[in-house]
This record gives sequence, C-alpha cells and structure tokens, in this order.
Amino acid sequence: MLSIEKYQEEFVTFLKDYSFVKEPKGLYQPIEYILNLGGKRLRPVLTLMTANIFSSDYKNALNAALSIEVFHNFSLVHDDIMDDAPLRRGEETVHEKWDTNTGILSGDAMLIMAYQLFETYDPEVFLALAKLFSKTALEVCEGQQYDIDFETRNDVTIAEYLKMIEYKTAVLVGAAMKMGAIVAHASEEDQTGIYDFGRYLGIAFQLQDDYLDAFGDPKTFGKQVGGDIIENKKTYLYLKALEFSAASEKEELQKLFASTVEDSTTKIERAKTIFQTSGSAEATKKAILEYTNKAFEVLDALNILEDKKALLKAFGNNLMNRTV
Amino acid sequence: MLSIEKYQEEFVTFLKDYSFVKEPKGLYQPIEYILNLGGKRLRPVLTLMTANIFSSDYKNALNAALSIEVFHNFSLVHDDIMDDAPLRRGEETVHEKWDTNTGILSGDAMLIMAYQLFETYDPEVFLALAKLFSKTALEVCEGQQYDIDFETRNDVTIAEYLKMIEYKTAVLVGAAMKMGAIVAHASEEDQTGIYDFGRYLGIAFQLQDDYLDAFGDPKTFGKQVGGDIIENKKTYLYLKALEFSAASEKEELQKLFASTVEDSTTKIERAKTIFQTSGSAEATKKAILEYTNKAFEVLDALNILEDKKALLKAFGNNLMNRTV
Repeated sequence: MLSIEKYQEEFVTFLKDYSFVKEPKGLYQPIEYILNLGGKRLRPVLTLMTANIFSSDYKNALNAALSIEVFHNFSLVHDDIMDDAPLRRGEETVHEKWDTNTGILSGDAMLIMAYQLFETYDPEVFLALAKLFSKTALEVCEGQQYDIDFETRNDVTIAEYLKMIEYKTAVLVGAAMKMGAIVAHASEEDQTGIYDFGRYLGIAFQLQDDYLDAFGDPKTFGKQVGGDIIENKKTYLYLKALEFSAASEKEELQKLFASTVEDSTTKIERAKTIFQTSGSAEATKKAILEYTNKAFEVLDALNILEDKKALLKAFGNNLMNRTV
Repeated sequence: MLSIEKYQEEFVTFLKDYSFVKEPKGLYQPIEYILNLGGKRLRPVLTLMTANIFSSDYKNALNAALSIEVFHNFSLVHDDIMDDAPLRRGEETVHEKWDTNTGILSGDAMLIMAYQLFETYDPEVFLALAKLFSKTALEVCEGQQYDIDFETRNDVTIAEYLKMIEYKTAVLVGAAMKMGAIVAHASEEDQTGIYDFGRYLGIAFQLQDDYLDAFGDPKTFGKQVGGDIIENKKTYLYLKALEFSAASEKEELQKLFASTVEDSTTKIERAKTIFQTSGSAEATKKAILEYTNKAFEVLDALNILEDKKALLKAFGNNLMNRTV
C-alpha cells in the first residue's frame, strides 16, 4: 500500500496525461478547465486505495477513479449554475467564465464521458461499474432535488435531512470505494462492506462540514465561517436546535433563518449561541462520532488484513479530525 | 413484420406502462411530462422495426427503444433551455412550466435513466449498447456545440454544415436502428450497414427539414413556414445560395440574414426568391435525393430478405415524401 499523497500524485499524473480537449473546443475546453482547478481528489484517491486493498494492480483502477472525478466535477458545474455561484475553488465557475449554455452542454458531455471511461474493462466489470454508477448518479440528482425542495419547506425532519446528505454526498464516497473493489474483483460481501464504510464516512464528513461551517477556525477553514447561517441553510445544527429548543427560542431561530441582513455578524453570533445552548452543537458532534463509528464497525467485519484496516481507519480519523 | 403504426402502438403502450414518477416528485414529474407530450416516436419505432428484421422477438428491444426516446427527450429539454424556447409540441417546455434548474436536473436524470434501461440485457449486449450510446450521445453534444458556434461564424462551409447535422440529428437515427440490430444479435456487418442506412436517411431527413421550412405547405407543415429565415439560421439552403450567388446577391443575402425585422413577410419572400433563382432550392432537393439514395444503396447490400428491405425502403420513401 502507498501513502495517500502517493495515490493522489498517481491520479493527478494520470489526469494531466489524459487529453480532454478535442473538437469542438467550445465543448471540451471547459471540461479540461474545471478538472484542472485542483481539489483534494478525495474520491479518486479512495478508488485507488480500495483497489489496492484487494489487488496489487491498483493502476487498473485509474480509469474508474477518473470517471468518479469527472462525474463529481460534472455535478459541480451543473450545481454551480443552479446556485448561481460565481466562484469554485477560488476561480471562476464554468458558466461564469463562459456562459450558462456552455455549462449545461459541457456538463452533459462530462456525464457521458464518465461512462465511457469504463469501456476499458471487460463486459462483466463494465456492467457492474455502470450499474453502480447509474444508481449513484441518480441518487445524487435526487439528493440535489431534496436540497432544493428543503429550501422552501419548514417541516424538514432530521431523518429527511440525513437522507438528503446521504444521497447528495455520501453515496458517491461509497461508490468511489466500491468501484475500486469491483475492479480488483473483491467478493460481493467485501464490495458491500466497503461501500457502507464509505457511505457512513461520507455522512460523517458532511455533518462535520455543517459543524465546521459554524464552529470552524476562521484561520484554517477554507470558506467563510457562518456561511450556512447567512444563507439560512437548514443544516443538522439548525434542525437539531429546533428540536431541542423551547417555543420562544424556536421562534427566534426560525425568524433568524427567514431573514436576510446587511451585516450578518450579530445573526451569526446569535445562531451559534442557540446552537450551543440548545445542545445542538453537542448533538452534532455526537452524530459525527456515531457515523464514524458505524463506518469503523463495518470495517472491522471486513475480510481484509489488519494493516489495511488500519490504513482505512487512519484515513477516516484524518478526515474526521480535519479543521478544513 | 408489423406495420409502422403497430410498432408505434406497441411502443406507446410500453411507455405508458413504464412508471417514471417516484420520489422526489419535483425531479421525476417533469420527466413523465415531457415523455408524454407525444411526437411521432420515430426513433423507438426504428429500433423495434430493426430488431424485428433480425429476430422475431422484437419486444426484447422495447427497453433499448425507450432508452433512445428518453435520450432524445433529454436533449430536447436541455436544448429548449439553451434556445430559450417557450413551446415544445404546442405545450409549455419543461423549464417554462417549472424552471431552468428543474430543466437542468431532470434532464441530467433522464440521461442517466437512458443508460439504466440497458441493464436488462446480458453483459455483452449491455456493453455494446452502452458504448454505442455514449459515442452517439457525445456526438449529439458536439453537433449542438457546432450549431451554437455556427451562429456567430460567417465562414461555415457546406462540409461543416453537413457534419453538424450528421452529429446533431443523423447519428441518433443510425444508433436507434443499430441498437435494434444489437439486441437481435445481428452480425457486425449488418449492424454497420443498418447504422449507415439510418445515418444517411437522417441526413436526408434534416436537409428536407431545411427545405420544408422555407418551401413547405403552410397548411400541412407543423411549424411556421420561413421560421429559419426569420431566425437567420444558416441552413443548407442559405449556404448553397451563398455559394451559387454573384457578389451583389451574396451581399444582399448576408445583409438579410444579419437583420431582425418587425414584419418578416418581405424578408421571407426575398430569401425564398434568392434560394430559387440561385439554384440553391434545386441543389437542396438534389442533396436530399442523393442521401436517400446512399441509404438505399447500403440497404441493397445488406444480408436480409427482400421483403424486409422493401419495408425499410417504404419507410424511407414515406419519410422523404412527407409534407410535415
């Protein structure tokens, strides 16, 4: 097994060597642009790492890893249009640098290219990868739709919220890992196990994102601290605070999250205080730990060597102790 | 073999029985809506008909036929956003009835569902279908990009225009037929032949669309006659007229196609006159015939029974003698 940095390096080399641009340039240049904006390459690294757990030939998983990264970036391009976001990783979004039509069409091409990247595998593996991919991609769309629906709903439950983040974020982490297992011909049981490990870790990761958005260290947190509060996002922190609060505080929180203010300093401070006093901040930390532990329990039951388990556990702990 | 109407009926019954709507409804209802707007179901009928040429079990091709129809409608939903079109088949477009974000996201889901519809086939057939589908879908995106690029270019050649309509329209007709052949386990040679037949017929069909847009009978032509002229579309008629015209007439035509006028009656009349006098109308009719004949030549060489060839020929002639 290699280090995380080493898999990352391997993947980025593969990505740089892959030629995305052909004719017509107007369709393919935006694709090369977004894929080269960088990022942690978390998902493809997980594909390679998982392949290497079950087989020495992890390089055979490079095409599947790239497929996952192309799909992830497809979803960013289309989501950025829907959110009207001007920036992505500190650079102009595709629809901002070109236009909305380019964002739609280049995104469509990326979704197709993600399937094409499986074509190097034999028919059985191709079918398994494409099936998992389609199921996952459709769930990501469903997650995005739930997210949009929740913006205008005031009765979102914790269970619904958890399902939304599972679909929008976590299933792709699970699928990234399962693809590595499929390519390496792991058993069905191990495939399911590694998928669940990734899925639980993905939920924990997203809950931690919610937590850090409010309570992260401004020095190390990449985005603006309090961004979710400014945008009135009904995160786990918010929903749990509603659940735990008495009527008067509940009403205050709902009013706060229905308002748009010029200077959000007071709004952020007040929301964070309620998150703390209501016990929601504590409950969120507990939920993160619970989902991380669920992931580790699945891992323990897996039929792989202890040192490989240790590596995945280290990866999980690393992710959960992050400050960015 | 059945009649075209019978395949159409079979397909529509299958479509109506297929349940597109699940949760979240906001994602799936627009999909059911657009698929039930009607249309000639030309592409899925071709899939079923081709499957039946090579096998008695044409019903086995129903999933592939539906995939083609779902993809075609996906491209309509996204193209309608890009063209800002309010109407589709006389009804509101998806982005108009809902909103742009719904159009983008539901369209994405349709592209994924088109792949999922192949999952009922065994791994080898699945791979063959998905490979052909990806190649074709990417070409359709490329064709759309060329079409967009051509809007702002004044040096589009006839060859470039033909490539654009081949990608944007014709390859999907070829692929619809080839999918029927794949499902029916036709030989590679027959698969290629039937693809080329469909592709040539698709080009002829699109050229006829250009011709009818200007010279169709307003009583039977579904769209507004002269629509392409109003929108300054550089069709085959326009490009050929430029090629055939002397400098002064060429300049007049270019000016005409750079203008937007309140009352387009005179503009349409003048453009049509130039199309006629320059010999462009005649050349377009000739090109339609040429591509139809290319299709029929490919058909003659195919290793199928004469009565089946006659059916495909009748279908081609029917299509080419249409007034709508």
